Order: sequence, then structure tokens, then C-alpha cells
Amino acid sequence: MKTIILPEKGEWETLCRRPSIKKTDLEETVREIIKVVKSEKDKAVFHYSEKFDGVKPGNLKVSPEELRESEQLVPEPVKRAISKARENIEKFHSSQLFPEAPVETVRGVICWRKGIPIEKVGLYIPGGSAPLFSTVLMLGIPARLAGCKEIILCSPPGKDGKINPLIIYTAQLIGIKDIFKTGGAQAIAAMAYGTETIPRVYKIFGPGNQFVTKAKELIQEEGIAIDMPAGPSEVLVISDRYGDPEFIAADLLSQAEHGTDSQVIYLTDNRDMIEKVKRKIEKQLEALPRKEIASGSLENSKLILLPSLDQCMDFSNIYAPEHLIINTTDPYSLADRVINAGSVFLGQYSCESAGDYASGTNHTLPTNGFARNYSGVSTDSFLKKITFQEISAEGIRNLGPAIEILAEAEFLNGHSNAVSIRLKTISNG
Amino acid sequence: MKTIILPEKGEWETLCRRPSIKKTDLEETVREIIKVVKSEKDKAVFHYSEKFDGVKPGNLKVSPEELRESEQLVPEPVKRAISKARENIEKFHSSQLFPEAPVETVRGVICWRKGIPIEKVGLYIPGGSAPLFSTVLMLGIPARLAGCKEIILCSPPGKDGKINPLIIYTAQLIGIKDIFKTGGAQAIAAMAYGTETIPRVYKIFGPGNQFVTKAKELIQEEGIAIDMPAGPSEVLVISDRYGDPEFIAADLLSQAEHGTDSQVIYLTDNRDMIEKVKRKIEKQLEALPRKEIASGSLENSKLILLPSLDQCMDFSNIYAPEHLIINTTDPYSLADRVINAGSVFLGQYSCESAGDYASGTNHTLPTNGFARNYSGVSTDSFLKKITFQEISAEGIRNLGPAIEILAEAEFLNGHSNAVSIRLKTISNG
Repeated sequence: MKTIILPEKGEWETLCRRPSIKKTDLEETVREIIKVVKSEKDKAVFHYSEKFDGVKPGNLKVSPEELRESEQLVPEPVKRAISKARENIEKFHSSQLFPEAPVETVRGVICWRKGIPIEKVGLYIPGGSAPLFSTVLMLGIPARLAGCKEIILCSPPGKDGKINPLIIYTAQLIGIKDIFKTGGAQAIAAMAYGTETIPRVYKIFGPGNQFVTKAKELIQEEGIAIDMPAGPSEVLVISDRYGDPEFIAADLLSQAEHGTDSQVIYLTDNRDMIEKVKRKIEKQLEALPRKEIASGSLENSKLILLPSLDQCMDFSNIYAPEHLIINTTDPYSLADRVINAGSVFLGQYSCESAGDYASGTNHTLPTNGFARNYSGVSTDSFLKKITFQEISAEGIRNLGPAIEILAEAEFLNGHSNAVSIRLKTISNG
Repeated sequence: MKTIILPEKGEWETLCRRPSIKKTDLEETVREIIKVVKSEKDKAVFHYSEKFDGVKPGNLKVSPEELRESEQLVPEPVKRAISKARENIEKFHSSQLFPEAPVETVRGVICWRKGIPIEKVGLYIPGGSAPLFSTVLMLGIPARLAGCKEIILCSPPGKDGKINPLIIYTAQLIGIKDIFKTGGAQAIAAMAYGTETIPRVYKIFGPGNQFVTKAKELIQEEGIAIDMPAGPSEVLVISDRYGDPEFIAADLLSQAEHGTDSQVIYLTDNRDMIEKVKRKIEKQLEALPRKEIASGSLENSKLILLPSLDQCMDFSNIYAPEHLIINTTDPYSLADRVINAGSVFLGQYSCESAGDYASGTNHTLPTNGFARNYSGVSTDSFLKKITFQEISAEGIRNLGPAIEILAEAEFLNGHSNAVSIRLKTISNG
């Protein structure tokens, strides 16, 4: 952890830079995987699972038996907690669905938008050290609420050839039954092009390692949509002198434990707080099972003293954090000034973990400064907004002459002709 | 034009394929342009303008004098038509702005979303045969309504070293004054990385040739957002026997005149209509100034007889047209079944030109089948939706235990600790 006391404004941009990620040159490898999966389909998926994950699952698709089994393997308290989280996520994400009223722009010209689900979507859930069943909720619930007809899920199997039962249980709970045992770039390629077993989808969601990220980037070139570009997770906490150093330290550590490439930033206008928070971090760190990961991440992390809370907010807007915790006595006055952030947590009890799991907001958020130009996942992410218009004879009479002039000024006479022919017919009729 | 009578369903997918675009290998060229502009900035922009457009403008930024001049060069009737179009586009796009109500997911846990403008956006307006000032309206108006702080515009100058006055006039009218004389990949690179004269932006909008398209695709890799992937324009018209063949022919031609790579499709359940529409197309084509372009496009185009209007709608959903005109006696019954389309026009007077210019809807729409997974440009395209939450002591008491269980099931004890510390403090207090 670096402590930085009252840095010059000229240094802010440098301080806001993310730790540079080693760009391993895996583009060639991933392009090859995509190409082979596109042509050899299931066979290639099995091949790469064996090659990269050291496992050859008997069945690519999770069987009805495995679905039932997962039900028994998840402890009841976890089931109840999942059910509570589900309820809140459903409540918040269904509030994002509403019809928009038609607008009569001129008499006889009525325009409106309608949200229509993307028919086929694919969710990717990483394997590895943490079974991210919470991400199943965060992607699956809005997909279901939007009304997507085909929702499939890919996740890499463990050494036993099976996907973690928590992931299967959660998927099933929200109505996703087409679950496939494959991970990495091959899973993304399979969903993008389809195989004998895995159906092709139009949009792919979910986090993953650098192979997954690169594959998502590359399939975009062929018109398959993705949720957003990826980067390491991060949190920025702002507090005044009244913030509880224990809470702040715990919030910073909850982010730091994600991965050694995570970044945590603490901003305050009170010099003593820097020391207090630092000491609490050191103390809490000792007790964490993922201490080693968190320590690695803390090396990239910064505690910064700034002259005022307003300047803390300015700094945060330059940094554009994925998660922003405003733990001050009057969080709303700063919240009104948020320009760039993924998700914002107000007040001392609004910890990031709440949004990660159960408060109702989505946890798939823009990282790496992408909060400047991307939104997090929402129900909208699973919809297209299609515009409709109906123009009556009166409408085209009102609007037609302007269209003719504009089209001719662009030298597009076919465009003006489509109007002129109608105006002629109306005046003749 | 090909006429296809009652094709088998097995053939539909093939019929829906877009004419294959020659993928000229320009990636290397465009990567080089981007690299050079990134390091040599203005100097590189001037260099490429001279190299590709054969013009070296004296000033990169449109001068106050040129701004004034454009005002005088646009004829009054065109000004009035622009003003009418502007009014409608503003009316429709401002209806897309509304606050979302907060949701209390559990007692003491309040979540909401807020739309916040992307601070810096860049609009690209192509040069070439048609001065697309209508696109200035379609991109500039929602950018202004969203509240973007910096809106810049790039467009290539003509041989006289100037941007078409219609483009400058329209930009200025809606409050855009930072207009730069540069086109192609160098314009996209300049907006992505910034030069001494052209500011860096976070999201880039607008159509363009294959250099522009490729540059937009490539800068995405570095986290700059773009409006949507690009492809040639297209329209699909569905009519029953009551459709006016003259209207239908005019609508098909208004699309065909865009470019030789445009595609137009006509679907009907009435055999006679095929012949009638064909004859009207041939007749109207003769009178079109852009006859040659339209003829080229018609070579890719199809008139298809299907057994029923319902099957026409099914076909359209597979094709996923940018523009869909439903010119039937009861357009609403089909409109309810639209799954994939960019913008839909209902009834005999709703011609595509209306939406292209002045009815109020946006004309920047997903082509090439991207209507399956992308929306057209709207006010939303210029906003990020940021989630906020405030959790009270009661809220964390209600929600905390579930979060602890979920975090521990994912082996993320730092996450559960952020909750436990708060619960402990509350129960001690």
C-alpha cells in the first residue's frame, strides 16, 4: 500500500492509472481455438478441455441426473440465502422493464420504442478457486426477466468432470437447464458459432480469464455482441473523519481478496484516517484465508489524502471506479456529483459485498476505467429497443414537404420520391 | 432482382444471407494509421488527409469565419426543413429521458439507477457524394439531450479544403462548434487518442467507409466504445394484395439508391403483387438520378412470394432487417410479432424516408443482421446507467446474514467480513 499525501493535481491522472496488465500474446492461440471450434465443433471442444483443463467430461451437456444431484448437494442455509438474493435481484431488475408511451411528434406521426428480448444468449461462468454462483443470478435473472427464449450456460468442469453443484443448482433454480461443461476460449467459440451439442447465441455475457476475454473480443468482429470489455476488479472508498476505519478496511480487503491484480483506493480529507485505516487493514489481513491474494493486490493500492471531499469526488471521477463507496456523513451531496462509476454505495452500512450478492443491483460492472463509457449489466442488456412509427395521410401531408427538401439536399431523390408519390396520391384521392 | 416463388423453409436461411462483402485486407493499413496518429498527432492527420483525400486543409478546426459562412450558404427552405426535423427528433428523443424510481428491495435497502451522460463523445460524418447533414441531427440531438459535455464532430473536407456547409450549419444549429476537417481512419484515431487540436473522446458514433469501420472496430480493443458494428443499409417490405405497388417500388428504390451494396427485399402473400411491384420498380428506376447505384443494388435484391403474411413475418425475423415496412391492411397484428428489426414502419404512408429524416426516430440503425443483438442509436446511447444503493442499519441487519452465507459459499471471507464487522458494531451499539 502506498500512502500519498496531498498530491498535486498534475499527478492525479498518473495516480489514476491501473497497474499495467502483462499483455501476453495469446491472440494467435485464441484465434486458432476459435477457428478449430468453428470447423470441428464438439470434437474440438472436447479436445481443448482435455488439453487446457486436463479433463474429458463424458457428457458435454449437464445430464438430468446431474441436475437432480446438485439439488441434494447444496446445503439448506445456502439455498435459503440464494433464494433471498434472487428475490431482491428480481425486484430491482424487473423495475427496469416498463413500456414507453408513444409520442405524436407532429399530427398524424406517432413514434414509439419497444423493448424486445434478444432471442438467444449465452452466459459464461468461470471455474477456478471460487464457484461464482452469484454471477449465475446476476446474469440469469435479467435474462429471464427480459424474456430471452434461449438461455444457455457454459462453465468449465472440475477434475471430476463435473460443474460445481452450486452453479448448477442456481442455474436450475432460475430456469436455466441447458448447461454445458466447457470453459475458456473454446466455450466462447462454441456459443458464438454453435456445435452439434451447444447452440449458437447472439450475445455472450460473463467474466473470465484472459483466454475468455480475448475470445469475447475476437468474436465481436463477426457481429456477436458481448456484455462489456473486461479488466481486473476495483473499489474506491471515500470517507471523512467520521468513517469507521474497521468498516473501511474491511471494504478495501473484500475487494483486494478477488485477485492480485485487483486495485483498491482510499481517499479522505482527514490525515489521521489514513493511518487508522492502514492499521486496521494490516490487522484484518492476518485473519483472511485469502491473505496472500489480498496482499498482492494491496501492493497496487493507494491511500490518498486530498484537501477536501469535493476533491476526493473529482479524483474518483477521473479514476472511474467499478465500485465507489461514499462513506461520509452526507453521502448524497457527493453522490450528486458522480460522473464516472459502475455502482455507488452510500453511507456506512452500504458495503460492496451487499451489491455483490444480495441487495438487488447487478455486480457485472465496468472495470479498468470503462465506467467512463459503459454501463453495468441490467435488464436492458438482454433487450433491443426497436423503434416503431405509424404515419397517417394527415401525417405525411404535414411532414412530407420537409422530407422532400431534406432528401433532395442530400441528393437522394429516391428518398424524396417515396414521399412525393404518396402526396400525389393523397391529393388526387 | 430475383423473383422467388414459394421457397421451401429449408431455403430461408440461405435467402436471408447478405451479399458477401469483399473483405479487403485493410487491417494492417488501418493499424498503421492508428499507430502513427497516436504518436504524431496533428502532423499525422494532415499527412493522411493529403495522402488519401488529396487535400491539405489550412486549419484542422473549422474557423469561426467558416461557421458564419455556412450560415449564409444554406438556402432558407432547407433551413426550415432542418428546423422541422430537429423539432421532431428532439421531441422523440427527449421522451427517452426519465428518472427511474428507487426500489426498496428489503426494508432498509434502497436501490436505483441514474442515467449520467458520457462526458466526451465524437461524431463522425462521412464526406463523399451525399452531404449527410441528417446524420448530424440524428447523432447530435441525442448527445445534446443526454447532456454530454464535450461533443466533437469530424468530417472530411472536399477538394476546396472545406466541409460541406450543410454539415457545418446543422452542427452549429444544435450547438456543436468543435468541428474538425478530417476523415477516414485518421479521424477515428484522432478522436480515440486525441491530438494537439482534436480532443480525445470516450465513445465514437457514425457511419463511414471500410477504413472508418475497421478503425472503429480496432479502437474498441483499447476500451473506446462505439455505437454499433457497421454494414450496408437494407430494407424489407411486407405487403398484402392491397399494398400500392407504386409506394412499395418507391420504398425499395429509396433504399437501393444508397449504395450498390444495399439490399432490398419484398415479401408478399399475393402472387400478382410480385409482378406489379417489379414493373413499377423498372419504371421508377429510369427517372432516378442515382439510377446506376440503384441498379447495382437491385442485383442483390429479392421479391419473394410466401404462403401467408405470418410466414412473411417469420422470414423477416430471420432476416433481421435494418428497416422493416409493414404495408398491410392490419399492420399491428404483424407488428406484435416483430422480434428482429432496427426500425419498423406501419401502414401505407409510413415510408422509410420519413424515419430517415424527420418523423423523430433515429436513422442510425443495426444493419447486416445485427438487429438480432443491437439496438439503434437513442438517447440511451449517450448515457451510462449507474446503480446506487443506500443500506441502513436495519437494512444490513435484514440482508447481512444471507450475504455472509453466500460469500462464504464462494470462499470469499473478506466479503463476508465486511458484513460481519458491521453486524457486530450494530448489535454492540
